[in-house]
Amino acid sequence: MINLSNRYTDLAIEAHEIFMNSSEAKQQAKEGKTPPGVVIENAGDEDVKITRVHITSRTGEASIGKPMGNYITLEVPELKDNNEDVNKKTIDAMAKELRDILKLKEGSTTLVIGLGNWNVTPDALGPKVVSNLMVTRHLLQYVPEHVDEGVSPVCAISPGVLGITGIETGEIVKGVVDRLKPDALIAIDALAARSMERVSTTIQIADTGIAPGGGVGNKRMELSEKTLGMPVVAIGVPTVVDAATLTNDAMDLVIDSLMNESPKDSGFYNTLKDIDRDQKYELIKEALNPFVGHLIVTPKEIDDIISRVSKVVANGLNMALHQGITLGDVGRYIN
Amino acid sequence: MINLSNRYTDLAIEAHEIFMNSSEAKQQAKEGKTPPGVVIENAGDEDVKITRVHITSRTGEASIGKPMGNYITLEVPELKDNNEDVNKKTIDAMAKELRDILKLKEGSTTLVIGLGNWNVTPDALGPKVVSNLMVTRHLLQYVPEHVDEGVSPVCAISPGVLGITGIETGEIVKGVVDRLKPDALIAIDALAARSMERVSTTIQIADTGIAPGGGVGNKRMELSEKTLGMPVVAIGVPTVVDAATLTNDAMDLVIDSLMNESPKDSGFYNTLKDIDRDQKYELIKEALNPFVGHLIVTPKEIDDIISRVSKVVANGLNMALHQGITLGDVGRYIN
Amino acid sequence: MINLSNRYTDLAIEAHEIFMNSSEAKQQAKEGKTPPGVVIENAGDEDVKITRVHITSRTGEASIGKPMGNYITLEVPELKDNNEDVNKKTIDAMAKELRDILKLKEGSTTLVIGLGNWNVTPDALGPKVVSNLMVTRHLLQYVPEHVDEGVSPVCAISPGVLGITGIETGEIVKGVVDRLKPDALIAIDALAARSMERVSTTIQIADTGIAPGGGVGNKRMELSEKTLGMPVVAIGVPTVVDAATLTNDAMDLVIDSLMNESPKDSGFYNTLKDIDRDQKYELIKEALNPFVGHLIVTPKEIDDIISRVSKVVANGLNMALHQGITLGDVGRYIN
Amino acid sequence: MINLSNRYTDLAIEAHEIFMNSSEAKQQAKEGKTPPGVVIENAGDEDVKITRVHITSRTGEASIGKPMGNYITLEVPELKDNNEDVNKKTIDAMAKELRDILKLKEGSTTLVIGLGNWNVTPDALGPKVVSNLMVTRHLLQYVPEHVDEGVSPVCAISPGVLGITGIETGEIVKGVVDRLKPDALIAIDALAARSMERVSTTIQIADTGIAPGGGVGNKRMELSEKTLGMPVVAIGVPTVVDAATLTNDAMDLVIDSLMNESPKDSGFYNTLKDIDRDQKYELIKEALNPFVGHLIVTPKEIDDIISRVSKVVANGLNMALHQGITLGDVGRYIN
Repeated sequence: MINLSNRYTDLAIEAHEIFMNSSEAKQQAKEGKTPPGVVIENAGDEDVKITRVHITSRTGEASIGKPMGNYITLEVPELKDNNEDVNKKTIDAMAKELRDILKLKEGSTTLVIGLGNWNVTPDALGPKVVSNLMVTRHLLQYVPEHVDEGVSPVCAISPGVLGITGIETGEIVKGVVDRLKPDALIAIDALAARSMERVSTTIQIADTGIAPGGGVGNKRMELSEKTLGMPVVAIGVPTVVDAATLTNDAMDLVIDSLMNESPKDSGFYNTLKDIDRDQKYELIKEALNPFVGHLIVTPKEIDDIISRVSKVVANGLNMALHQGITLGDVGRYIN
Repeated sequence: MINLSNRYTDLAIEAHEIFMNSSEAKQQAKEGKTPPGVVIENAGDEDVKITRVHITSRTGEASIGKPMGNYITLEVPELKDNNEDVNKKTIDAMAKELRDILKLKEGSTTLVIGLGNWNVTPDALGPKVVSNLMVTRHLLQYVPEHVDEGVSPVCAISPGVLGITGIETGEIVKGVVDRLKPDALIAIDALAARSMERVSTTIQIADTGIAPGGGVGNKRMELSEKTLGMPVVAIGVPTVVDAATLTNDAMDLVIDSLMNESPKDSGFYNTLKDIDRDQKYELIKEALNPFVGHLIVTPKEIDDIISRVSKVVANGLNMALHQGITLGDVGRYIN
Repeated sequence: MINLSNRYTDLAIEAHEIFMNSSEAKQQAKEGKTPPGVVIENAGDEDVKITRVHITSRTGEASIGKPMGNYITLEVPELKDNNEDVNKKTIDAMAKELRDILKLKEGSTTLVIGLGNWNVTPDALGPKVVSNLMVTRHLLQYVPEHVDEGVSPVCAISPGVLGITGIETGEIVKGVVDRLKPDALIAIDALAARSMERVSTTIQIADTGIAPGGGVGNKRMELSEKTLGMPVVAIGVPTVVDAATLTNDAMDLVIDSLMNESPKDSGFYNTLKDIDRDQKYELIKEALNPFVGHLIVTPKEIDDIISRVSKVVANGLNMALHQGITLGDVGRYIN
Repeated sequence: MINLSNRYTDLAIEAHEIFMNSSEAKQQAKEGKTPPGVVIENAGDEDVKITRVHITSRTGEASIGKPMGNYITLEVPELKDNNEDVNKKTIDAMAKELRDILKLKEGSTTLVIGLGNWNVTPDALGPKVVSNLMVTRHLLQYVPEHVDEGVSPVCAISPGVLGITGIETGEIVKGVVDRLKPDALIAIDALAARSMERVSTTIQIADTGIAPGGGVGNKRMELSEKTLGMPVVAIGVPTVVDAATLTNDAMDLVIDSLMNESPKDSGFYNTLKDIDRDQKYELIKEALNPFVGHLIVTPKEIDDIISRVSKVVANGLNMALHQGITLGDVGRYIN
């Protein structure tokens, strides 16, 4: 479910960047301190850059504006180009990170939830990932003799969104979880990023639970390890930037660029420095009115991109959950 | 979920026809008796012929091979032709029959389930009906001021099939029902008919509950008024005939036709009379092997037909459930 | 084919507005003159506002930046809301304007071209309109006895785009036109607007020919009454605004708003007044780099909107081309 | 375009089988002769069985009921199972056979035509293959520096069917060929088989030209090397069996089976032997009336099967036409 609230980002890595640009963090940096409650780890390479943001305390939570937990980001600039080698590296890296964060015992049952609206192209990522998953729980139950060694029970649903079902998505998921009692829950969702460069090139894996839905002002139901007593991992890929954020950021870049060209003591420079950036954001929102919150910015080729990225994410899941399987085996299990 | 078992029909009206052709029923007829435990009512007109089969006792159940309850059939030969006038008559008739069988109080919440596999064209009827439904429960909850007078809370899900989700469909439905506690449950499903003439021209409404799924030999979960304590109505439209049934029926017609042409005392006539029709059916199944049970016969234009019939069935539901609404209002509520 | 060039608009009505805001036009207005070579007519009502821009001379052509000819715009703010009454008014108005501009004799053959890429949601308008058209040429040729009175021969193709076919779209259209020799050519296409308010609410009908394709820097093939010797009418609906245009316009509004709040003689006011708006646009394009030209802004619900608007435009065409037909008859002709 | 005429098969290999079962051919065989004008070559292995039927004279043409020319059949029982190894072997074998039959010079331009109706699942094979093709003609024309060594100019269209366009498909293809003047024409189409076992497991490559369309009794336009002066290759995969054929064949099997069980001199045996099999076929057609010619038999999973087989056929084409390319490169060229 794409959240288009103001200046919002679903990505912990972006939230961290925003914090590191704040005067508070800059002050800390000057004093040689790192922000308390936030640990950053880097891994991967140029093709697949891995950043692990661990928020370890309430202070870290307050700084970054995201709940305590672990957020792993895979940045893959070529993810939208359908390069087979890069896809394979991404799938391998994603499978490894996912296994590390899930720590499932062999034979555990995983329920995968494809969040989002299949009728809205950039929101359809979750359902599309689910349609490329190796769903095996029923095979292990009814025809175990036809299932390869090393295949674990995976089941999956795409519950739709409130506007389609009339039911809070969290209610549907909770109903199914209560009956099925899986060992782990994984939710896939399309996200909103601040930066256009992250759209369709970034995969975030987080173990902080999910709160599907939102929208009409309803209180959302949190599904997390705390409330469910099982690992709850959210996997997201940004597919849009909201129009007000893009406009605002572009405007900041323009103002910065104009300031750089002006002598530092000119009236012009000072004027620009004085522009109240919060006020500006409000003005942009008004200018985009009555569409604000509904307007999205997206690459023109978003239909194709979603379908490619969904396959990569699905295969990352397939390789993580079925440890005896190679990519070549997947085809025989996909309907 | 299309059931392709031998000689099976999902339609009570066809099961009744088969029974009426049995020697038992013919004997009863000779004696001027009607079969006990079965009451037939006819209504409607040439465009929309309505037959109500009421199975009222265990004896009736045994004769017809369908559980006790009420089965209403709308036969609309022009249903697949997209004739606007006939569509409207069908919608009105269906809405009336459905209201009579549901007997809901105003303001009751209905949960509609679109059964079947959206990836298999003739099995996609249920999900397609759901996508044309006026889903309103969330609107009445969050923005009642934007909802017309006479709109009742309706919610809907298409839970998929076992092969897609790895979960018994009944488990998903039960999980959602347990959390939501609606006042009535309506399930829409594609059916298999015996007769090609009934494909895409017949709507069956039954109050005997549903047992979604089947397939790999699993015991199916019954969802009925008895098990759930609320009205459970199944609405079905036949979209296929299984290939073995069609072949068998065609062969019977050929044999009958050959017999009619032969002198009644000829060896040829007697030979044909002696063909064991059960053995013949087994032979046909072998001949169609290894495909039997998976081969379907369907009109070439099934994709279009499903999409038209789905709209009619959805509007029948819309008119039945939202009594203050006309067909012209529906558009504003469909996403 | 959505054109996302700088500050571009496909709508003559927007090009006219831009011109009327130019210093040249303001000067003319002061002198009580109207711009030469441009005639504006208004019609319609609040639901469906009709504006006819007639560019009648080279001078008008130069002012507006659009070729000489007639451009009719239907502005229907509720077009995206699926209001049945407004839809019907739009269809009637569109049919009337189209008939007036086409001036076809009875029995004339029309070839309708659905331009655009069916894989890119906001570019799929043309192909979607074609799929809702009453295509009748073959019926009149082979089974005229099954065709209603007042149905004219209509045929239609969706030729795809260069990236899908590897062929200039104009070449495909020209090849078909040369063999078929229809009496009129109508092309349907998704457009880019400057203003988000016009997206999915505006229908433009123009008789100035089409030049399908564009893109990779190729010279486009003009198809017009001049080159083909038959009426060539283009029907377009804006479905996107390009991101740079939106950002630029939003920024202008912000600057205007800041200026309004500043005292007219303050340094701040003067600084803002001095911002070079052309330079600003270049800076925005850089800021959106490397995506510029590919980023689109679109309502989140664009998939649904396109499918609704396509039906209205198709029915406008159906009512214009088949004069003996009512909306209730269309269903029987659509596959 | 699926042809469902009586007892028809699009496959030369089936037509040859039928002929070999005729009394004429059996007589020739007894005399130790092979049928004149027909040469059969076998190749391949158990996974991918290759049969080349060469019809070399008018006599062969009359025997088999197919025009003179070369028909290559790949039989791949596992083609519908999505086994990656078998898929790769099929792609390689298809590419090799296709190159041998096309004999194109390097740099030749190929136009691929995806025949069939994209709205009818089993008829959508051609358009689906086209959507998985490496279309490159425009890239070589406009951005040759971004194209790999060994990529040849390929362009492709899916012209639709008469019922969608109102235009004979042959007219559209001819119009495009006349403007484009490619060096070779390849048409992809869904076929009807006699035997259910061949559905979705067989690929036929023939160099005898195509006659797209048919249907409403129209004379079809032949597109062949003779009429166009360039190689014209048709690639087809059977996706359906028509219901009358299936019923008839099943009935023959039943009769044969009953005969085998009867003593050879019994009246029963003789009666069955006397059944006029032509009369029987007519009776079946009557029994299936009014649907005959429109009823198809198809595996329930046809939607998935079509989409898998399309990818294999498309990659066979990609490997045949772009000789410097491996399967791993294809992704970067597909939209």
